[in-house]
Amino acid sequence: NMNTPVQGNGFVAERPVRFSDCDPSGIMFYPCCLIMLNSVVEDWWAHLGTPWKSLIMERRIGTPTTHLDTIFSAPSAFGDTVAFHLHVESIGKSSLVLRHIIAGPDQKHRWRARQRLVATSLDTHRSIPWPDDIRAAINLFLEES
Amino acid sequence: NMNTPVQGNGFVAERPVRFSDCDPSGIMFYPCCLIMLNSVVEDWWAHLGTPWKSLIMERRIGTPTTHLDTIFSAPSAFGDTVAFHLHVESIGKSSLVLRHIIAGPDQKHRWRARQRLVATSLDTHRSIPWPDDIRAAINLFLEES
Amino acid sequence: NMNTPVQGNGFVAERPVRFSDCDPSGIMFYPCCLIMLNSVVEDWWAHLGTPWKSLIMERRIGTPTTHLDTIFSAPSAFGDTVAFHLHVESIGKSSLVLRHIIAGPDQKHRWRARQRLVATSLDTHRSIPWPDDIRAAINLFLEES
Amino acid sequence: NMNTPVQGNGFVAERPVRFSDCDPSGIMFYPCCLIMLNSVVEDWWAHLGTPWKSLIMERRIGTPTTHLDTIFSAPSAFGDTVAFHLHVESIGKSSLVLRHIIAGPDQKHRWRARQRLVATSLDTHRSIPWPDDIRAAINLFLEES
Repeated sequence: NMNTPVQGNGFVAERPVRFSDCDPSGIMFYPCCLIMLNSVVEDWWAHLGTPWKSLIMERRIGTPTTHLDTIFSAPSAFGDTVAFHLHVESIGKSSLVLRHIIAGPDQKHRWRARQRLVATSLDTHRSIPWPDDIRAAINLFLEES
Repeated sequence: NMNTPVQGNGFVAERPVRFSDCDPSGIMFYPCCLIMLNSVVEDWWAHLGTPWKSLIMERRIGTPTTHLDTIFSAPSAFGDTVAFHLHVESIGKSSLVLRHIIAGPDQKHRWRARQRLVATSLDTHRSIPWPDDIRAAINLFLEES
Repeated sequence: NMNTPVQGNGFVAERPVRFSDCDPSGIMFYPCCLIMLNSVVEDWWAHLGTPWKSLIMERRIGTPTTHLDTIFSAPSAFGDTVAFHLHVESIGKSSLVLRHIIAGPDQKHRWRARQRLVATSLDTHRSIPWPDDIRAAINLFLEES
Repeated sequence: NMNTPVQGNGFVAERPVRFSDCDPSGIMFYPCCLIMLNSVVEDWWAHLGTPWKSLIMERRIGTPTTHLDTIFSAPSAFGDTVAFHLHVESIGKSSLVLRHIIAGPDQKHRWRARQRLVATSLDTHRSIPWPDDIRAAINLFLEES
């Protein structure tokens, strides 16, 4: 349930809303919101100490999104800076549920997302259990945030 | 509820999964799925007789997405052709709920989406009632599909 | 020299200028022109009988662009349909020079590009001679167009 | 001539090469290079004191690219950080020529670009002389860099 409050600020990353993110109506194009979200998740994996580069290119582990629920409450405009707050809701055997809150300069929520990822072998395209080092890094993040 | 079955084939549009839609793991990048979804919705508005070009650029009416729930069941690979099936779930005073089913060449579902749009003035960024001609075109589509 | 005239219509592909291709000034964003160009080159390789899917994913041969010169003469607007005309200027041991002319509905040139590609091993990232079947397919295209 | 050396480091901006910038061959997709270039040019206008937001949205002045020549010498891979160096080659009545050098972590050139922009009225889509404040800001940058 996306309406359950999350605690703390989580992993925070700021992003400018760029010219290339906006559409002819002058506001941010929603698929660009998700490219931006993906870049924040990418930075979070690096923050955990397990960057996607080694995960995907060396260890052949992908983290495809299986569920993504988004609510857009207010548009973002070209020139805004928005802050992403990433929280971990839960970690399963192979899955991970992230909660994202995106706020404008006025701290008001612009949009929110709930994202379920699954650890996947890039060779078989099947789910695999989270490797121990990744599970430990995510649990450490859960404790600290 | 995205698990409620939809009837008929709806508005159908095929799309190739292009090189530019895919990521270093060789499968379709999920924000590219949503750019593609948006192109299908764009074609559907043209099919209704009310293309976005006149809607947005002349009448200054936007149709921003307020809710988007997606389930990705199976990855799409570079070189696949996928078929989008668009259904109207409901139309409100200012809102519209679309259901999307995306199938691969084997007819199996690759992913699904439920999308809520709201008719919006591009001048005030506030919701407005659907104009009569648009409501009539959507109701006609509902009867025929 | 991009001012040398090209003969014939070449390989022709039409593309709509979509909402997602346009920027807050209402015209096509130039990097989107190049994503579109790339999709036309992708279709041309399929037309030759050597689609990128088999070339890249199975034979591990890439065709990276080493030089790209573009002249934008007139903007394209959201809702336009543009026609791409692809010509082969020359083929070398490992290289290929393409010429692209992009025209609007009025047949007037919107933009032009000259693109040099190089056959490359995706394992070594070094140039390789064009395989015989690809050279033959390109030579056939040169004779016919 | 892109082979003429440029002096100084110019305006420098670093960018990570992200997952979303890369293609199934694992290297940076060249149209994504140009989206990234555009983001650097956007930051340079802000650095000048005349951000695009006010230029485009308030003063209705666009800076469309009329010529773009690019040479890609070496591929960039997912996970690299690249440095953009922006120089002004010349400023005309309505035009501006920028030179871009993009280097990898080893300081070696990855790619280069020469870009000609034209000040344009977004209402008439015709070129206009650079406003005095913008010309002064660009001349100041030329002196300092």
